[in-house]
Amino acid sequence: MTDFSSVTCLTIVAESIVQERLVRALAASGAHGWTLSMAQGQGPSAHGDVSDIEGGNVRIETLVSPEVAVRIWAALERDFFPHYAVSAWQYDVKVARLARYSDEG
Amino acid sequence: MTDFSSVTCLTIVAESIVQERLVRALAASGAHGWTLSMAQGQGPSAHGDVSDIEGGNVRIETLVSPEVAVRIWAALERDFFPHYAVSAWQYDVKVARLARYSDEG
Amino acid sequence: MTDFSSVTCLTIVAESIVQERLVRALAASGAHGWTLSMAQGQGPSAHGDVSDIEGGNVRIETLVSPEVAVRIWAALERDFFPHYAVSAWQYDVKVARLARYSDEG
Repeated sequence: MTDFSSVTCLTIVAESIVQERLVRALAASGAHGWTLSMAQGQGPSAHGDVSDIEGGNVRIETLVSPEVAVRIWAALERDFFPHYAVSAWQYDVKVARLARYSDEG
Repeated sequence: MTDFSSVTCLTIVAESIVQERLVRALAASGAHGWTLSMAQGQGPSAHGDVSDIEGGNVRIETLVSPEVAVRIWAALERDFFPHYAVSAWQYDVKVARLARYSDEG
Repeated sequence: MTDFSSVTCLTIVAESIVQERLVRALAASGAHGWTLSMAQGQGPSAHGDVSDIEGGNVRIETLVSPEVAVRIWAALERDFFPHYAVSAWQYDVKVARLARYSDEG
């Protein structure tokens, strides 16, 4: 039977232009790894149509300890949310092999 | 310390052909934004092989209030599930800046 | 009102080279379908830079019953984790139309 531990999955969707800065912030916050994929942000236009509001976006997923998640959110609030179109959300997930995601694991 | 609120993350995977109709349904249901990415649906074939069952798919993620989620599910059940290959699921996530995702925020 | 059931969403990120083997393992474990997308794995380098550690990756999402999830994790631990760069995590999600995801549905 698999031995599960709980970690935080943090997903960030941002303009591609900040990808490099974002992954440096993840590394500096203590993330051990992350997954990038291409995405496209959209929203309803002022006229009721659907329009691209953010052009080419990057979607970044990282599995981290709660302590690292706190540091990433602090970096997002300080260096990204005020300046760029960035969405972020987190939820708890179960993983095997906790040591891959946590310095304490 | 980040001040978190809970919102609903709704993920929809559908044939690319219905992408435009789906995003119009999201906008009409009150979603403030969503993220599109390309994906490929597969399943086991009748012969035990793996085969593409749905060709080019689109994966749509949207963060919405519970009220908007109810309206999106109603649209999925009325206009999409009976006619197209569509998968959808939802779960609760934590966000900062609730106002970005909710008219009530 | 939509009638929701809970299923397990299992996400796997792996080197593209094992994609075919992974989807065969999903099918053999009883998954009814899955979604593939392209992704890129990264981590902090030994020098404090950010570097690609895994090249082209595939991200696979599948919605399954808890019983099927147990079988997939057993396959991951036996055939994939010891040999390849693979990340996997699971969480509970709500779906309509349970029968699409479960033999018991």
